[in-house]
Amino acid sequence: MKKVILLFFYFIWFTPGFAQNEDSLFIRKIYDEILTKGEAFQNLTYLTKKIGPRLSGSAGAAKAVEFTKKTMENYVFDRVFLQDVMVPHWVRGEKESAYIIKGGQKINVPIAALGGSVSTPKSGIRAKIVEVKNFDELKSLGEAKIKGKIVLFNRPMDATKLNTFDAYGGAVNQRGSGASEAAKYGAVGAIVRSMTTLKDNYPHTGGMRYATGVPMIPTAAISTNGADLISSLLKEDNNLEFFFKQSCETLPDAPSHNVVGEIRGTEKTDEILVVGGHLDSWDLGEGAQDDGAGCVQSIEALRALKALGYKPKRTIRVVMFMNEENGLRGGTKYADLAKLNTEKHIAGIESDNGGFTPRGFGMVGSDEQISKIAKYKSLLSPYGLHEIGRGSGGADIGPLGSQGTLLIGFKPDSQRYFDFHHAATDTLEAVNERELNLGAASMAALLYLLDKYGL
Amino acid sequence: MKKVILLFFYFIWFTPGFAQNEDSLFIRKIYDEILTKGEAFQNLTYLTKKIGPRLSGSAGAAKAVEFTKKTMENYVFDRVFLQDVMVPHWVRGEKESAYIIKGGQKINVPIAALGGSVSTPKSGIRAKIVEVKNFDELKSLGEAKIKGKIVLFNRPMDATKLNTFDAYGGAVNQRGSGASEAAKYGAVGAIVRSMTTLKDNYPHTGGMRYATGVPMIPTAAISTNGADLISSLLKEDNNLEFFFKQSCETLPDAPSHNVVGEIRGTEKTDEILVVGGHLDSWDLGEGAQDDGAGCVQSIEALRALKALGYKPKRTIRVVMFMNEENGLRGGTKYADLAKLNTEKHIAGIESDNGGFTPRGFGMVGSDEQISKIAKYKSLLSPYGLHEIGRGSGGADIGPLGSQGTLLIGFKPDSQRYFDFHHAATDTLEAVNERELNLGAASMAALLYLLDKYGL
Repeated sequence: MKKVILLFFYFIWFTPGFAQNEDSLFIRKIYDEILTKGEAFQNLTYLTKKIGPRLSGSAGAAKAVEFTKKTMENYVFDRVFLQDVMVPHWVRGEKESAYIIKGGQKINVPIAALGGSVSTPKSGIRAKIVEVKNFDELKSLGEAKIKGKIVLFNRPMDATKLNTFDAYGGAVNQRGSGASEAAKYGAVGAIVRSMTTLKDNYPHTGGMRYATGVPMIPTAAISTNGADLISSLLKEDNNLEFFFKQSCETLPDAPSHNVVGEIRGTEKTDEILVVGGHLDSWDLGEGAQDDGAGCVQSIEALRALKALGYKPKRTIRVVMFMNEENGLRGGTKYADLAKLNTEKHIAGIESDNGGFTPRGFGMVGSDEQISKIAKYKSLLSPYGLHEIGRGSGGADIGPLGSQGTLLIGFKPDSQRYFDFHHAATDTLEAVNERELNLGAASMAALLYLLDKYGL
Repeated sequence: MKKVILLFFYFIWFTPGFAQNEDSLFIRKIYDEILTKGEAFQNLTYLTKKIGPRLSGSAGAAKAVEFTKKTMENYVFDRVFLQDVMVPHWVRGEKESAYIIKGGQKINVPIAALGGSVSTPKSGIRAKIVEVKNFDELKSLGEAKIKGKIVLFNRPMDATKLNTFDAYGGAVNQRGSGASEAAKYGAVGAIVRSMTTLKDNYPHTGGMRYATGVPMIPTAAISTNGADLISSLLKEDNNLEFFFKQSCETLPDAPSHNVVGEIRGTEKTDEILVVGGHLDSWDLGEGAQDDGAGCVQSIEALRALKALGYKPKRTIRVVMFMNEENGLRGGTKYADLAKLNTEKHIAGIESDNGGFTPRGFGMVGSDEQISKIAKYKSLLSPYGLHEIGRGSGGADIGPLGSQGTLLIGFKPDSQRYFDFHHAATDTLEAVNERELNLGAASMAALLYLLDKYGL
């Protein structure tokens, strides 16, 4: 048996085709650089505290374009440029108001219009409220029970999912399509339980889309505590009424930009590796975890490689994608331009799951591509990167997929992400500097391996 | 080659001797129970907000004994009892004061006496301050440069260590032995840089011990920002003076208790598995991460197993150890009693590294014991428990080691632990409920496997 095992290990150990020792030393240098001289947190501080929210088309978004461009120029990347892109321009308007009407009593609850929603009439909407957990339940109630009512979509994120993104995936159709589904049966408004595993008093906003052919009814997120309150009051009184008022609107598309920085390859200049996050954010918080973190980590990865004197074989680009939250216009534009210019993108890394402690990378690509990356596990697991395999890439790099680019999603720990996601609490204080730095270092380490060995 | 691999996998896959499928289903049930009905956070809320700090000998510690005993009784564990133990009784006295004297100017800095320190004279101590990074530097300065001075020990935790406990291990001798080392050369006081990777304004206290045969000089922790300020001012003025005043003292030993709850085994009643944390905490915060988290997780592990109707083969005990922070009397007493009563402890699990997202278990034991646990990796890695191997067990369970007990330290993510450690910021707000629950579930899952298959 011993020989069999030895033979097996021989094949396992001697097939990777990479220089284990040299690579492990350089990866150690990357972590040392970023953990001791990292500038990601300082850049994030500016982005969140000096600029703040950065919804597409807003003044904040424009300032963030300027700031990140300037930051990359200060780091003396070989080339820094903007890509023009027209983006949706939705504005929240005045702060929303909402209350439950129980008997004669009004009970205020916190709501926030969903991005893309229409406004209510100026005087607001008041109607009976009906709770459903899913679209099947909505359908079974039908027009008889729904017409003229406000629908509360109140299916919580499933707390038993280990990865909270799976729990999000199981609940977010209420937010994305709830309004149009409810409108099919004559509802006059749709209120959606916030996408968070917390019981809190913050509405967590997010994007929604109207289906064609049904009335566009106003829709808003309600805090989980607010949703639970309505649910419990409905058990006592199924004539419960709800009032809400919002003045959001969609303005004409606005000009904006992706911001691109580049370190030119020395051997295979035409092979491009891209790393990025999205620069736009929802308007309620500071867009710190979503996705200021991913932006500053991506810039930091290039800064560190350059600071260490690393001369890449391939061209490495960092991209601040615009408009991930409500349109994906930046990601789409980037891929369109790549195609137009016949650029060869071999891999993209996106950080859009927060700046928490790294756990690994989730990939979309061919088995061959993924198994090549999985072989780097022994180099990356000392840094807590154990989960390297098929997964989800990232929204912004997604459109590159049709060109055969390997899509790599940086995978940090997910437990706290939805505590802050799309809410007023997504501020710098939600980010831990060491965790942020470790993410940047993880991405830089993988960029190094991708550059050195290709795909 | 294919045959060789198949043969190899045959041996890998068919040797564990455990019921993979049945076990994975039950472990899933444990996580579901704790993630949806967990009571750990609610218990921690009481422990931190209703009781608060719990330094050995304090009223808080006594209340915590009562509360956790009652909690276990409410869960109807088969047996709940106290173990008497005499503990050191150190008190902080009045809030400390400290300032730098530069020219005529006084600059206040935040300090906190180290646990075990003597007081200063009532009027405080004022002397020139000398900075050192380690004991070698102190020795090289010698009596000539140290006598009559206050020594600032200012070696930071090493930010490049991936596991912050390694960084702590590399710096904490300054806190534990700095005062006596400085006193050897005639110093009149010792100020120690707080053990945290943050730059903050909070002193992080902790235990210290005086060596025999040298004067007992007063010693305190200073915030990292305060330490950095002194260091930078010393560069301009090496006649810089420092003043500090503290009125802490050590009172006679006080009576206290370990709290023990037990679910009786149905087959191998005499084989004991123990799980626990320490109930005492430092006095500056609420002892939330250190170690309220470990206490409520340990109780939760037993609550969940019982709620699921699990009847253990072996006896499972949960222990709230008293006095980990400044004496380890509870852990020592527990092991002494185990020996006296000829109890057979096969394994102990301790949670004393915070209630953060689980990463694995670190063990102290024989190769055979450790490899047996490592075989459970395939069952535990779906829950993010990838790091299962030799490591550090835990201070409180440590004394059981001489009986051949396998010592298992629950290993959560370490990045944020020292942000709060021993400081006023170690409050409930530092704890995330999902992360806490995942830790409790990880411990319950391992207890289940230990109980079912023994060692």
